[in-house]
Amino acid sequence: MALTVVGSIAFDAVKTPFGERERMLGGAAVHFSLAASFFTEVRPVGPVGDDFGEEQFELLRSRGIITEDIERVPGGQSFFWRGHYDFDLNVAHTDDTQLGVFGEFEPKLSDAAKAADTLFLANIQPDLQRQVRAQCAAGFSGLDSMNLWIDIAKDSLLAAIAEVDCLVVNDAEIRMLTGEVNLAKAARAVMEMGPRAVVAKRGEYGAALFTESGDDHSFFALPGFPLEDVRDPTGAGDSFAGGFFGYLDGSDGDLDEANLRRAMGYGTVLASFNVEEFGTERVSRLEREEIDERFEALRRMTQFEGLPASRD
Amino acid sequence: MALTVVGSIAFDAVKTPFGERERMLGGAAVHFSLAASFFTEVRPVGPVGDDFGEEQFELLRSRGIITEDIERVPGGQSFFWRGHYDFDLNVAHTDDTQLGVFGEFEPKLSDAAKAADTLFLANIQPDLQRQVRAQCAAGFSGLDSMNLWIDIAKDSLLAAIAEVDCLVVNDAEIRMLTGEVNLAKAARAVMEMGPRAVVAKRGEYGAALFTESGDDHSFFALPGFPLEDVRDPTGAGDSFAGGFFGYLDGSDGDLDEANLRRAMGYGTVLASFNVEEFGTERVSRLEREEIDERFEALRRMTQFEGLPASRD
Repeated sequence: MALTVVGSIAFDAVKTPFGERERMLGGAAVHFSLAASFFTEVRPVGPVGDDFGEEQFELLRSRGIITEDIERVPGGQSFFWRGHYDFDLNVAHTDDTQLGVFGEFEPKLSDAAKAADTLFLANIQPDLQRQVRAQCAAGFSGLDSMNLWIDIAKDSLLAAIAEVDCLVVNDAEIRMLTGEVNLAKAARAVMEMGPRAVVAKRGEYGAALFTESGDDHSFFALPGFPLEDVRDPTGAGDSFAGGFFGYLDGSDGDLDEANLRRAMGYGTVLASFNVEEFGTERVSRLEREEIDERFEALRRMTQFEGLPASRD
Repeated sequence: MALTVVGSIAFDAVKTPFGERERMLGGAAVHFSLAASFFTEVRPVGPVGDDFGEEQFELLRSRGIITEDIERVPGGQSFFWRGHYDFDLNVAHTDDTQLGVFGEFEPKLSDAAKAADTLFLANIQPDLQRQVRAQCAAGFSGLDSMNLWIDIAKDSLLAAIAEVDCLVVNDAEIRMLTGEVNLAKAARAVMEMGPRAVVAKRGEYGAALFTESGDDHSFFALPGFPLEDVRDPTGAGDSFAGGFFGYLDGSDGDLDEANLRRAMGYGTVLASFNVEEFGTERVSRLEREEIDERFEALRRMTQFEGLPASRD
């Protein structure tokens, strides 16, 4: 199985109450790819500038990520984001965004990228997401977005959403997108647009999964993995998506409810490792064994036994 | 087993986007008692005025609640709260509070109330909570509070917390109380004050349980039960606590981790029924069978299977 992801490949400058980094590898497609690389073959698609060097390529390759579809634009500068977090780590404050080579990006997927079984459209302008989707007929596809596109490109975003199988956004964005305050109703409204699954990301509160079946099994939720040390939440949502879609692609596209729930678990685990240190620092030296240990710990933290009558 | 709860027994005026009620039975001890009444013998303690009539007593008695410790003060007025919610049902706006007979309340527990196995100190002035605690040596005790008391009576509140086994408050209040932003650290700080368990209420995101064991089993979380129709969140937290402590008391004081988790499940279920209609309307005509059905539905919504290797 193989997974293609399109999205930003960037440098980030980040300051949190627990430290700062002036320039580090970042971007949605990077965080996603690193997380997914533990489960399957990942191919990030996107442009970078001259400033994106061998060191960055090597970090990705060391995790088995296929970098052929990262297009280096001569004379260009890579996407750059500067932001900070105050004590409420759930809220990112953007101080600067420089699109760089992303401003001129016209996605052209290689034959290998087009042939992916799974496609993830990370948060970029929705017309670009549609251009990529049109080139890749992957059997399972997902999409992330943000409030900016709901504000300034809503029609295009709705068209993009209609073309994917699974929407993965923050719960506030699901409400904003549908104009429906009740999250269960909002998720149902999204599924009426096309997707058969909706993942609501909820920051420290974890994530919820809505699926089409319409009975009790149509809702599943996991808390965030409890951590005493969170240093930098940047990329948590992308790492979640990488764990989720990476695991699904790596398990031969098994999309039954039980496997979707396991994928939620892996997404939660990858997001939790991501926030323990700055940028890609923790995930880039993570071992699969650590992931599976934390996955099992998460299971122990969320299981409870049935009615007392049935315990005897 | 028997359960004593002290807290407000009140009339509420509530307006939400889904309707309004000018005067209905409410108060923390009322919501708590109704929820707990499905599991054990409950005895609410607190004062009411002349305006608290046979209709209100009868509603409580119809659920088997023992009303002997509800003290009717001649010439007095019952506690009254007026509030409203906008579209974000997580935020209550208080428009009026009249303490009435609660302003002069000096708790004197009957021998039966003192002999309870379980004691819950609902959200009232912390000195009153301590006076009640001093009269009741229940083997298991819990306490709720609010930001107001952290602001104006923090020392007294800290002393009250040190005297109970389980703190049940909103997650923001745990942070505020300890000055620690990280919830896991904040919960640990509370346990260092005395309690062996901390329940963080998280509104629509559910609730988390921290216990002392110090390993993976020391954290457990449940999402809120997903509902498409929420009409009035007033009393959700008290209904949660009633389900939680009521279930524990009714199961012969079994406080092992598995039973605490089941209690979290029952708390979640009772809170979910409470918010479906205004005030006590839904819970006062609830059946035990409906509770157990929803408990099992909640279990189905939160369970996931282990590593794929173990499914074969």
